[in-house]
Amino acid sequence: MASTATCIFCKIIKGEIPCFKLFESDKTLAFLDIQPLSRGHALVIPKFHGAKLGDIPDDHLGEILPVVKKLVNATGAEDYNVLQNNGRIAHQVVDHVHFHMIPKPNEKEGLGVGWPQQNSDMEGLKKLFEEIKVKMPAQL
Amino acid sequence: MASTATCIFCKIIKGEIPCFKLFESDKTLAFLDIQPLSRGHALVIPKFHGAKLGDIPDDHLGEILPVVKKLVNATGAEDYNVLQNNGRIAHQVVDHVHFHMIPKPNEKEGLGVGWPQQNSDMEGLKKLFEEIKVKMPAQL
Ligand SMILES: [Zn+2]
Ligand SMILES: [Zn+2]
Repeated sequence: MASTATCIFCKIIKGEIPCFKLFESDKTLAFLDIQPLSRGHALVIPKFHGAKLGDIPDDHLGEILPVVKKLVNATGAEDYNVLQNNGRIAHQVVDHVHFHMIPKPNEKEGLGVGWPQQNSDMEGLKKLFEEIKVKMPAQL
Repeated sequence: MASTATCIFCKIIKGEIPCFKLFESDKTLAFLDIQPLSRGHALVIPKFHGAKLGDIPDDHLGEILPVVKKLVNATGAEDYNVLQNNGRIAHQVVDHVHFHMIPKPNEKEGLGVGWPQQNSDMEGLKKLFEEIKVKMPAQL
């Protein structure tokens, strides 16, 4: 995980690297992706530096999706994907949490989605459910 | 867009269809995907019925990612994708907003990501930026 000193998104937040800034609050920044998958592809990031979603405080997380919605409305995207990747194997390149809002205007442009669905195994799911459920907080 | 009467996720919310329920609040429900892409694949949905992210009120959106984080922690996922699809072409199947938390344990299981990156066109981006920027609210 990059430190805040060398993190490219922290440098954008600090204004050390320019960006096409679309929104800014105390906790959140939104800007155009300069290597877009489609027209209007934009990023929303928390100003809190953390590599993965699990590292980000709830108050920062809470602002992200309302800002994504503003991007959807401002770009006029009809069909779109909202994606956040965690880890190299999951296609994360910059180790500062970022949400992609990627318009999907046609088959060729935008996000490609591969869906290697597994067969339903209700017995296995029930066992997994019991394992996970006990680790889930009941409250927000 | 399905009405709330016929929507499968609204039926799960109302308890008319069972689910492996992992979290519930006034505004949010989380449960296991029964056709998972990987072990621990789960869904977080707002209780507000809307087909696309742009249809959901901010107070409902604000709860989603903190609940996704709880799923990450409870499943112990190291690498994972958070994905929300809008529109058939963008791989949406159920017309009630849902966020996937999909663990990525290896190349074969979990989400497949296709990334048809376009060349940077700074002039085009600058023009697009100016078009979008004027439509972005300055405040949350
Ligand atoms: Zn950073
Ligand atoms: Zn519904």
